[in-house]
Amino acid sequence: MVYVGIDLGGTGIKAGVVDENGRILSKVDCPTYLERGHEAVIEDMAKLALKAIDESGHTPEDVPYIGCGVPGIGLSDGTVPFCTNLGWHDVPLRALMQRVIDKPIYIDNDATVAALAESVAGISRGAQNSVFLTLGTGLGGGIVIGGKVYSGSHNIGSELGHMVVMIDGDMCTCGNRGCWERYASATALIKQGREAATANPGCAIAKSVGGDLDKIEARTVIDAAREGDEVAVAVFDRYCFYLSAGINTIINAIDPEIVALGGGVSHAGQFLLDGVRRHVAEHLFYRTMPYARIELAVLGNDAGIIGAAMLGR
Amino acid sequence: MVYVGIDLGGTGIKAGVVDENGRILSKVDCPTYLERGHEAVIEDMAKLALKAIDESGHTPEDVPYIGCGVPGIGLSDGTVPFCTNLGWHDVPLRALMQRVIDKPIYIDNDATVAALAESVAGISRGAQNSVFLTLGTGLGGGIVIGGKVYSGSHNIGSELGHMVVMIDGDMCTCGNRGCWERYASATALIKQGREAATANPGCAIAKSVGGDLDKIEARTVIDAAREGDEVAVAVFDRYCFYLSAGINTIINAIDPEIVALGGGVSHAGQFLLDGVRRHVAEHLFYRTMPYARIELAVLGNDAGIIGAAMLGR
Repeated sequence: MVYVGIDLGGTGIKAGVVDENGRILSKVDCPTYLERGHEAVIEDMAKLALKAIDESGHTPEDVPYIGCGVPGIGLSDGTVPFCTNLGWHDVPLRALMQRVIDKPIYIDNDATVAALAESVAGISRGAQNSVFLTLGTGLGGGIVIGGKVYSGSHNIGSELGHMVVMIDGDMCTCGNRGCWERYASATALIKQGREAATANPGCAIAKSVGGDLDKIEARTVIDAAREGDEVAVAVFDRYCFYLSAGINTIINAIDPEIVALGGGVSHAGQFLLDGVRRHVAEHLFYRTMPYARIELAVLGNDAGIIGAAMLGR
Repeated sequence: MVYVGIDLGGTGIKAGVVDENGRILSKVDCPTYLERGHEAVIEDMAKLALKAIDESGHTPEDVPYIGCGVPGIGLSDGTVPFCTNLGWHDVPLRALMQRVIDKPIYIDNDATVAALAESVAGISRGAQNSVFLTLGTGLGGGIVIGGKVYSGSHNIGSELGHMVVMIDGDMCTCGNRGCWERYASATALIKQGREAATANPGCAIAKSVGGDLDKIEARTVIDAAREGDEVAVAVFDRYCFYLSAGINTIINAIDPEIVALGGGVSHAGQFLLDGVRRHVAEHLFYRTMPYARIELAVLGNDAGIIGAAMLGR
């Protein structure tokens, strides 16, 4: 038995065939071309899955179901009520995909799917309860409880980037204020770096982009901090503190065995872990009790395919 | 088969016998007298359980185990690493209690136990996933997932009062800043009422305590708000907003079917529900999706006994 996972993104679609242990046997991709409308995109998703099956040397008969990770919500009735960034609303994904492949179709949020992947084949393997955070344009979250993905009673849970960490804080794209995502995503780190570079034009962040502050990326801040630039060190330390605030909330509420960090900012590696672990340890509720390990996710961009492929197991 | 639950508090111990449906068959209590040390307190807990069994017309043979709710952490090895307010640290509760009653002993946090009670015999009955909040001196939380109490991987979870809702906010007794408890417990409402009464000595809050602001209780603020006093209305509305910030976080992270409100402030009843529901609805992430009902807990002080009695099921 092999498993097929599809990872739907705003710019690209990926599909792959995965074995029992989450190892990728084949992997193919194509552009999303959202402007064609969702029917054409879903047809391409299905065709890409068939191509991945073929490239793996298998046939559709070897595949029990198709799993899909989407940047939004997937319901057990096979519909996608929201993919905000794709402009999708109440899309009957399962029904449309079954026009091409007559198999059971499972759908869940992309960060949730990545959490499942890390728990089956990645850093959280063996953990009953784990949380995965993706630190990118937004801050996505996935929760695994009792070895299974947990999306709540109405499939709207695990939106950890929208936990309120600063009442009356910065306005979020979601309409609320003070969401964690405003402080701890890659976008937030870039904003924090720009503000610091504006106030300190001589700092290494500003210098490394030749004064063109629009060119600042997360890595610009991280590299300058790693080199010891005082302004950048302060920005990155503050970012790690913001990240820890939500992780301490997760520890106090969900108490997972492991919190895995993925997404762009996680490329800072041990430098990020050192900063976050220090702040988390300083703000624990039970200071002498064991608590979640904070680790880097290990599956990278493959997590979407692997986790989607595991959705029906 | 009948079940025994013990509810350990700082001033009193309660024990009761409960049937399959969580209905109380007998109920007894005694003072805690903490100053005697934990061994004497635990001996009294056991004796009180035996008395409750006797008063229910049963014998210890009818009872499969003893359940205990404690104001702290209980581990599966039968020890209580922390009951901060009792001054207990690494207490071998199970071993000491088994000196008197040779039965399996289950131990968990008191708010967790109350959450279980509400999910078995109270407002959350039938819900697979539910959250219980007690709005008292502190802000306690209990989580039920898949019909079972959820305390996390290290038994330190569901401390929902210590979710960070205000980075760099008010100092908490736990050593962190900006914990939800600082803004949404009964203690917080009293503090908010006192501050408003200090700034507005002519308001109904100040008048109703004859200007002695130390006499302000949660109910003082609630009653003045209910009567339409402008200052009190603003204080209580702001309190409901603070409460909603954490509930929105719970909805976005855990997405339960129901959030049940208990503890002192919940005596404000529908007046509290109206305020909280309005603020929660205004700050939802997915505005058109179904989400958790927010309701009043119904078991009151019996929740501790009932939930403890259900711990081993």
